[in-house]
Amino acid sequence: MPDSTQTVAETVVAIADGQLTTRQWTEHCLSQIDSPDAIGAWSYIDRDRALERADAMDWLRKDGSAMGALHGCPIGLKDIIEVKGMPHGCGSPLMGQVSERNAALVDALEAAGAVILGKTETTEFAALHPARTKNPHSLEHSPGGSSAGSAAAVAAGEVPIAIGSQTNGSVIRPASYCGVYAMKPSAGIISRTGVFEQSPTLDQMGVFAASLADIASIVDVLSVHDSRDPHSIAAPRPNCVEGYLSDPPMQPNLAIFTLPYQDLQEHACTEGFREIAEALEGRIEVLEAPPVFDQLIESQRIIHLKEAAAAFETMGLFGHDQLSETLRSMLTQGAAYSEDQYQEALDIKHSLTAFFDNFFEDFDAILSPSASGEAPLLNEGHTGNPIFCTVWTLAGLPTLNLPILQGEHGLPIGVQLIGRMRDDARLLRTAHWLTNELFDEGEG
Amino acid sequence: MPDSTQTVAETVVAIADGQLTTRQWTEHCLSQIDSPDAIGAWSYIDRDRALERADAMDWLRKDGSAMGALHGCPIGLKDIIEVKGMPHGCGSPLMGQVSERNAALVDALEAAGAVILGKTETTEFAALHPARTKNPHSLEHSPGGSSAGSAAAVAAGEVPIAIGSQTNGSVIRPASYCGVYAMKPSAGIISRTGVFEQSPTLDQMGVFAASLADIASIVDVLSVHDSRDPHSIAAPRPNCVEGYLSDPPMQPNLAIFTLPYQDLQEHACTEGFREIAEALEGRIEVLEAPPVFDQLIESQRIIHLKEAAAAFETMGLFGHDQLSETLRSMLTQGAAYSEDQYQEALDIKHSLTAFFDNFFEDFDAILSPSASGEAPLLNEGHTGNPIFCTVWTLAGLPTLNLPILQGEHGLPIGVQLIGRMRDDARLLRTAHWLTNELFDEGEG
Repeated sequence: MPDSTQTVAETVVAIADGQLTTRQWTEHCLSQIDSPDAIGAWSYIDRDRALERADAMDWLRKDGSAMGALHGCPIGLKDIIEVKGMPHGCGSPLMGQVSERNAALVDALEAAGAVILGKTETTEFAALHPARTKNPHSLEHSPGGSSAGSAAAVAAGEVPIAIGSQTNGSVIRPASYCGVYAMKPSAGIISRTGVFEQSPTLDQMGVFAASLADIASIVDVLSVHDSRDPHSIAAPRPNCVEGYLSDPPMQPNLAIFTLPYQDLQEHACTEGFREIAEALEGRIEVLEAPPVFDQLIESQRIIHLKEAAAAFETMGLFGHDQLSETLRSMLTQGAAYSEDQYQEALDIKHSLTAFFDNFFEDFDAILSPSASGEAPLLNEGHTGNPIFCTVWTLAGLPTLNLPILQGEHGLPIGVQLIGRMRDDARLLRTAHWLTNELFDEGEG
Repeated sequence: MPDSTQTVAETVVAIADGQLTTRQWTEHCLSQIDSPDAIGAWSYIDRDRALERADAMDWLRKDGSAMGALHGCPIGLKDIIEVKGMPHGCGSPLMGQVSERNAALVDALEAAGAVILGKTETTEFAALHPARTKNPHSLEHSPGGSSAGSAAAVAAGEVPIAIGSQTNGSVIRPASYCGVYAMKPSAGIISRTGVFEQSPTLDQMGVFAASLADIASIVDVLSVHDSRDPHSIAAPRPNCVEGYLSDPPMQPNLAIFTLPYQDLQEHACTEGFREIAEALEGRIEVLEAPPVFDQLIESQRIIHLKEAAAAFETMGLFGHDQLSETLRSMLTQGAAYSEDQYQEALDIKHSLTAFFDNFFEDFDAILSPSASGEAPLLNEGHTGNPIFCTVWTLAGLPTLNLPILQGEHGLPIGVQLIGRMRDDARLLRTAHWLTNELFDEGEG
């Protein structure tokens, strides 16, 4: 049985040392998933494939072969990511055909020695209609969306690492509600080939884990160039593990923006931020949101929905009666935006990129809430408001959820840390510094 | 101007330190290619793309972004490897359409910061009909084939690294004739997606460089899992740089096989081997080739030609009158082999794999000539005999060319070192040890 306080890197060392086998680690995770009080995080599990793979990894270890950064690490994949031989569910009864290929990121995981257990629940087509998953901290509450199962599976200890995606707030928000670390790296770091496409301009992959150290490990593994994805960066990648392990050369400069939707914040969230600001006194600057921020929420919406409408049109599913009402109305709205509105939204996105390129000359990171507060109740029928993620996703910036606050019902609330485009390594350095500053013993 | 005695890793450090720019390195290589006495190693060069890419890499360096293992390193690719926007020549007038995608290995190179200069000459469809390239050591001699341009370009100092492929002896043989280091890693280490397919069972990628250190760097960069290639290994890869840099825990055990085609060796080659055996006295065992070796040359031929015939059938080019006579006759022979002969050849290949799995329990590496001797004259109209590579390629074993002997005309002759399947790191460790043993100052 693996030690749950260990990082993945430490567990891999334990495997290398013969203290644990990959099969034991895999069986432990499968038994957690099978437990009677499981929270419905998985849409598909292939036990045979996982155990066969675990044995192969154990054999490689005994053979003296190379071991990867994720050697033997069980992993869950949001069910919009294709795995050869597994059904491609996408959270919809309209899908479910068995995939004939791996998503590019699956290849990267397997090359690092990971053991894919199966697919985690997603909201319908990674949009807003909730998945069946419950929040591990309270079964009455939502885990958020759209990467519901990935966030919840990590929070419940069913798997040390899971993969999700974010077009608006689908990684950072569920991580905030479920109380786990998460990262959406810079757009272009992780390939989207073989992942259901909702908005080619905005879709970005993200990861969930139990510690910041694990986040750094997994992002480095997934940071692979793939020319089939037009956003993929054809250049050397930031080294996130190195960033995580290094000390800032000087005290980082942080910024908090006063945002127009600030009043959506729950009291506990506002209080938490006040306390953080106090603890970091003199190192956080509070800034008025610049004029370019005014139209951002609307611009994200136009790009997202118009491209989603086109994607469903291409799949021949636009207006299909087996789509939820929520999704159908979202697509109808998307189709109604004019080409001019769409182009203007893209122009605004580009101005935003230019603004941040300049902004991060002076600051190391931006602090923001990850969500408005605690997870909504399941019976509210929604997955929470993604608005606290929208601007950063639109800009493609790397962003982290740090699960360090608590709401009035004792549920987790996350703090979001946003960094400079393509400087994911610095973001991890700053995050590690920040958690050390706030909690003397580190992020523990 | 880069220092030609430096390894690629050292040149990358010089770029990091600001002593050299990627543009300077790229322009230097382009000027070498443009020199009036160039040896015809290139079938296509895109100067604008290369310089634009070089500037982008210089910009990333100034920006403080991550630098890869090949940051700024100019590279040539055998013209059977697809690069988006470049013609896919394959050494035949029947090809030449502009590629719409990158081969997977091109993505890996660009993610490591490499600068692709263009395509190097190949024999017709990587088979036997010679390319126009000359041997840099003597313009009357052949550079070998099929990766003629890649071997010659590195030997002529036109590019520090080039990529080729080997179905029989198309990497190790030209490297031997041109006097450069080369490696064909274990089958499954480098993806073949986006590379012209001659024999899916036997095709393997390889690399050329000026030093063993560079070979280790480039193989690590290219060692990426790709599930689109059915041979690609979905497991952690050997770390070749680490292997190259480490010392053997004990004196390696080497073997030389007495092979049935031994008498094809030129006198200088036999003498060279005798001297090596003397220098390593007591650490080389000379073994009779086991019975399983008897049918290997024929088995390779059956698999190779039968699969090539099928590949040309699929392309609709079987028997095409614009194929060379050599290739047409090769394909006709291939088509004539029966399904039973083919299956038997595959069975023999599998027995060979089992033989070597067992053999390398006792030995670190096998020594063999890389070719029968010096390069043939161009006017002989052929690219030399690949027979000294056939067995190792058939088995998929990792193999190196060490350019350490010389023939009676002063032309290079290579020594081949063959290692355990998937233990490419150990092969580099053994090779480094060997060159140090033979030449006190290292491989210099």
